[in-house]
Amino acid sequence: MSLGEFDLIKQYFNKKNSDVEKALVAIGIGDDCAILDIPNGYQLAVTTDSLVSGVHFFEDVDPYRLGYKSLAVNLSDLAAMGAEPKWVSLAITLPDVNEQWLSEFSRGFFDLAKQHQVTLVGGDTTKGPLSITVSAKGLVKRGCALLRNGAKPGDLICVSGTLGDGAVGLAQQLESLSLINAVHFTDALEITEPRNQLGCLLVDHASACIDISDGLIQDLQHILSASQCSAKINTEKLPLSTQLRHEIDSHCISLAQAQRYALTGGDDYELLFSIDPQQYSSLCTLTNSGQNMITDITVIGEVMSGKCASVHLFENNQRIDATLGGWDHFK
Amino acid sequence: MSLGEFDLIKQYFNKKNSDVEKALVAIGIGDDCAILDIPNGYQLAVTTDSLVSGVHFFEDVDPYRLGYKSLAVNLSDLAAMGAEPKWVSLAITLPDVNEQWLSEFSRGFFDLAKQHQVTLVGGDTTKGPLSITVSAKGLVKRGCALLRNGAKPGDLICVSGTLGDGAVGLAQQLESLSLINAVHFTDALEITEPRNQLGCLLVDHASACIDISDGLIQDLQHILSASQCSAKINTEKLPLSTQLRHEIDSHCISLAQAQRYALTGGDDYELLFSIDPQQYSSLCTLTNSGQNMITDITVIGEVMSGKCASVHLFENNQRIDATLGGWDHFK
Repeated sequence: MSLGEFDLIKQYFNKKNSDVEKALVAIGIGDDCAILDIPNGYQLAVTTDSLVSGVHFFEDVDPYRLGYKSLAVNLSDLAAMGAEPKWVSLAITLPDVNEQWLSEFSRGFFDLAKQHQVTLVGGDTTKGPLSITVSAKGLVKRGCALLRNGAKPGDLICVSGTLGDGAVGLAQQLESLSLINAVHFTDALEITEPRNQLGCLLVDHASACIDISDGLIQDLQHILSASQCSAKINTEKLPLSTQLRHEIDSHCISLAQAQRYALTGGDDYELLFSIDPQQYSSLCTLTNSGQNMITDITVIGEVMSGKCASVHLFENNQRIDATLGGWDHFK
Repeated sequence: MSLGEFDLIKQYFNKKNSDVEKALVAIGIGDDCAILDIPNGYQLAVTTDSLVSGVHFFEDVDPYRLGYKSLAVNLSDLAAMGAEPKWVSLAITLPDVNEQWLSEFSRGFFDLAKQHQVTLVGGDTTKGPLSITVSAKGLVKRGCALLRNGAKPGDLICVSGTLGDGAVGLAQQLESLSLINAVHFTDALEITEPRNQLGCLLVDHASACIDISDGLIQDLQHILSASQCSAKINTEKLPLSTQLRHEIDSHCISLAQAQRYALTGGDDYELLFSIDPQQYSSLCTLTNSGQNMITDITVIGEVMSGKCASVHLFENNQRIDATLGGWDHFK
């Protein structure tokens, strides 16, 4: 069965919005533009990310997971600014109309959209090599966005969740790794959980924030460059998942290799932030009081003076030498 | 010379903004999101359009023109809503880093951005088959956006500019047309002038509006469906350019074929709107008083009752039969 472009958009993307909160959408899908209401006292946060077949995902990836992740990586950018996700546009280029694929892709996309009360407000469907560009929009109180340039010497460096599992998931597909928790690592790569609840909470506490998409060191360097600081990272503090520790204990992956995944692997989508020690105490109190469910924050280092944005690695107080980069599409 | 992704973005896209008005941009390129200020009393208009190599443009298209057009088609959607363009995000997927190509592409993009005082606030650069997704954002006074659903029986149907030249430009490249004004038609296809000044003016006058991207009839049907009306179009009133009339007079293109290009050809990016006759008089007075430079509006028909969104074609008051469609990527 062949569907026209407009029927296709309508069938898979328009109707699903009925399940999602429509607040602040004056005009949604179906006109030349969406028209959105921005409440007084708020600013608009906007981010755009593309996922290209053969670059960001394997051609045969589960379409449900691709739909989910296309949105997740964009929501993660909003989380890094402390913005509350509200709206999303989706531009999708498809080689042909595969209804089962579209049905699964849209199911994954809308499952995550619903979780975060995000409304699809527009987009474009074109024919061509498979790629997806999502533009997510959110709201943040005026002047409160979490920027990269606020880190100060003495601030603690923290990350949410655990690091390296996404990179192990990718390595598993590229190399022949024999792992005990194979499914867990594939899930970590493909089902990304954006940290929007934490991002909104950090607005009142953190001094700088970024999400880890290209690897901890590379993304930390973005904060350090913008803030004109350097940093010390204690590698023994890097939070590794139970599953990754299990692989280390079982000698499937060496500790050094696991730390390398944690330091330089992309696809973690955890938040990396700097925070004044006093603010960190307030954050912990807030967390422990049960008002919030944020219990997975780890202090991994400290911001230092030094304008050259250097990352100094330590292991049990011993300086270690490592030249580690992140992911750069054209290098 | 090979450049890293971040250097590349910086070199070709970041620095150019210094020439453009930065008003209402709290945080531009260089953080996880852009942060934008929306003045009180305004709503945000958002549109997204993709251009894919081999579908929307030929692989060897002049990169200056591609950069220009990628932005133009998005500004045209803002024009159709009567929104003033303000910001734009650019997601570009490139097979490799060709600095001359990038330099020309960004020059075309920023030439148009500067004309419309639009600021590039973010985007994404990835490796893969050449495609460009632009998301443009603009402002419109609360409740004043030009929608598709306001046409009423008795309203006049108008278009800006002339129709069909873009379609002739495309036909020229696909078939072997021998034309006198060949360069003009290629320019019409590749150098689109979005009608943003007219769009903003129409906010106070038109009852419904759309930009013609997929062909007059198909785009008119979007207005008619949304407004639950039908329409009469007088084909002899279709505004054809001097150059197209010259081709007809010289027997290079038949009148019937020229009208077919005007009715069904895409790539015109003119505004198509319905307007109450009294409002049309006001608009003409405004135009003639010299307050505005909008002199290229043609009345081509009338909105009629009839909920089935039919377009009835007439030529010198004689009903003519024609089954004409527009452009649909998957049909």
